[in-house]
Amino acid sequence: MKKLICLTMLMASVCMADDAASFRPAETNVWGAEYPRVDDTGRVQVRIKAPDATKVKLNFWSGPKVDMEKQADGFWTLTTTPLAPGLHYYVINVDGADLSDPGSTAFFGGSRYVSAVEVPEPGSTYYSIQDVPQGQVRDVWYHSKVTDTWRHAMVYLPPDYESQPKKRYPVLYLQHGGGENETGWIRQGRANFILDNLIAKGEAKPMIVVMANGYARRPDTPAMSGPPPAGSMSSAQMRNLMVAAFEEDVTQVLIPFVDRTYRTVANRDNRAMAGLSMGGFQTFHITLNHLDKFSYIGGFSGIGGMMEDRKPDLKTDYYGAFADPAAFKKKVRLLYFGVGSAEPERFTARIRDLHNVLTEGGIEHVYWESPGTDHEWQTWRRNLKDFASRLFREK
Amino acid sequence: MKKLICLTMLMASVCMADDAASFRPAETNVWGAEYPRVDDTGRVQVRIKAPDATKVKLNFWSGPKVDMEKQADGFWTLTTTPLAPGLHYYVINVDGADLSDPGSTAFFGGSRYVSAVEVPEPGSTYYSIQDVPQGQVRDVWYHSKVTDTWRHAMVYLPPDYESQPKKRYPVLYLQHGGGENETGWIRQGRANFILDNLIAKGEAKPMIVVMANGYARRPDTPAMSGPPPAGSMSSAQMRNLMVAAFEEDVTQVLIPFVDRTYRTVANRDNRAMAGLSMGGFQTFHITLNHLDKFSYIGGFSGIGGMMEDRKPDLKTDYYGAFADPAAFKKKVRLLYFGVGSAEPERFTARIRDLHNVLTEGGIEHVYWESPGTDHEWQTWRRNLKDFASRLFREK
Repeated sequence: MKKLICLTMLMASVCMADDAASFRPAETNVWGAEYPRVDDTGRVQVRIKAPDATKVKLNFWSGPKVDMEKQADGFWTLTTTPLAPGLHYYVINVDGADLSDPGSTAFFGGSRYVSAVEVPEPGSTYYSIQDVPQGQVRDVWYHSKVTDTWRHAMVYLPPDYESQPKKRYPVLYLQHGGGENETGWIRQGRANFILDNLIAKGEAKPMIVVMANGYARRPDTPAMSGPPPAGSMSSAQMRNLMVAAFEEDVTQVLIPFVDRTYRTVANRDNRAMAGLSMGGFQTFHITLNHLDKFSYIGGFSGIGGMMEDRKPDLKTDYYGAFADPAAFKKKVRLLYFGVGSAEPERFTARIRDLHNVLTEGGIEHVYWESPGTDHEWQTWRRNLKDFASRLFREK
Repeated sequence: MKKLICLTMLMASVCMADDAASFRPAETNVWGAEYPRVDDTGRVQVRIKAPDATKVKLNFWSGPKVDMEKQADGFWTLTTTPLAPGLHYYVINVDGADLSDPGSTAFFGGSRYVSAVEVPEPGSTYYSIQDVPQGQVRDVWYHSKVTDTWRHAMVYLPPDYESQPKKRYPVLYLQHGGGENETGWIRQGRANFILDNLIAKGEAKPMIVVMANGYARRPDTPAMSGPPPAGSMSSAQMRNLMVAAFEEDVTQVLIPFVDRTYRTVANRDNRAMAGLSMGGFQTFHITLNHLDKFSYIGGFSGIGGMMEDRKPDLKTDYYGAFADPAAFKKKVRLLYFGVGSAEPERFTARIRDLHNVLTEGGIEHVYWESPGTDHEWQTWRRNLKDFASRLFREK
């Protein structure tokens, strides 16, 4: 992989004269914005107006962090080395202030709205809009007695939901990562297109996908200063309070609301939960503590309990769910772990550890590494495609 | 009104010691963000990190434009004078670069994602989420043969849409302003809550609301460098090309798509169109050129043809729709103009002019000024509330 990139970089520098022709506005840009631009090798050109700034830096969260160059016209520019395919969050730091690129759609990540640039994956159409029957995504509000607030969720209904008014559907509860919110799986992850395309090919069963906001607080607990930044919890206590409130919201409010509002098959055999990073942690916490409600479980780049720095103990951890492998196998139709091979070791090592411990302990599960992708959305799109295709099938 | 504000300002300065207690995070903030903050008088406190900047300015698009003050901790702060109730767009300029406030939800306006702060209107609940039956908003994609692209729209379906599977509904096509997009009426305008609340009180008929993206380009016409900034078109020619493409998209693709996809009453008596600012211009252009398709017409802070600097000629302008007042009255059940009394004269004067010319010409219409509001969303929320309550009723 490294050799290929070096060769590509070499070719790119040879082809410098053709830059203008091969660079085109990123598909994540707002209507009409010329920058950021992407070329076929995955290089990204960023351009920003900051005439009076003394220092401007371009910071990709999982990628280059480089000084931009001031031009005579008051704009600062930079062309990156080739980036891996996928969606890359970035901010531009102007004299110490983090700025979103006005040319980019703003995505909610890192507890704020930030820029991101889509680098196409050659030949991949599974997460693009295609001329296939399409499901619709709904903005939903429900009142939670747990948080005593109105809460917002996104709900994907499969293409035949309205043409089949008697049909009932299984449900996947799908959670975003830390610092992101309930819009992430649609806006960044394109979960609706992934499901549409899988369902059109017969590679996934038609299903409802519920994407809830993973931050929850009981009225009687202190407010956090903000959602935890991706990859690090603010404090174990805060995290546990939030996860416990979210667990109550999901199991006592959200699931009954969904089963009341949509034509679901309201039983554990037809209910799945998965999440990425923090959402994976929440998924393991909630599902393994409520095996009466879920029979499909997925963690993408995030696993429960493993935030602690020790090997898991299958007899006692995870509410003892793994203590009896035969009983677990009978209950859980799919236990799935995904991770990107290029993620930082704090993610990969722990998930591999759990994979090994579960294998030794005789707990059936699927472990899948996404080749070459980091702790970013390309990993989770691939995970969702793989995970969704395994759901709600006879064992 | 001015006297009241001065008094309020005086009171605020008297109550300075209570600042910390009375300021609270704006309801438009992202989860957990402490700033921007709002107090009961409508003052806004903004705080931004920019440790190495030499000059930081706070620019409200319809409001104060002021230098921020650097604090010892690298943050810059400012407290505004009281602002009118409503949603106010703002950017922070750091050494020449426009920055969105990371504490604010990012709304699409001015052709980019920007910050905005909600200043509550005391006693107003009509645009807030209430414990009433709720409609759902859907993300919809349709392929347009006019633009040869997939296009995104938002569709509000009324609360009883699913419980009444045989019922058919009238449709309001509702357009955003220049520099905004199809998400504006939901995210900024809260059209879904306005409709839910009106319908719950029996003050509006249950209806479907379709919010489309107002930018359109035929593949054979040149790309604009970007959507026009709010209030000013890039060029008359570009504007006309874009409006013509959008007109074809609405009449040839969008309306058939909506009538095919949802349970609509697919005739002119049950079809309305309205829009704000640029969307008002588009509404007049499209409806008056297609009176076979629409019988309710609304322009909020924006009217067709009036972009030109002359009095309208009712015999020839607007496709001659006003040439025969009796015929017009027979066809058009509602012609509605709204504007905020505090808007710049380029909006108010021209709309008042048209109102006068139509009155003299014997064209029945409704003209309504929103007291004290500018070319901003509070005007358009009020307009929608008033307009929607007049739709689809017997004359």
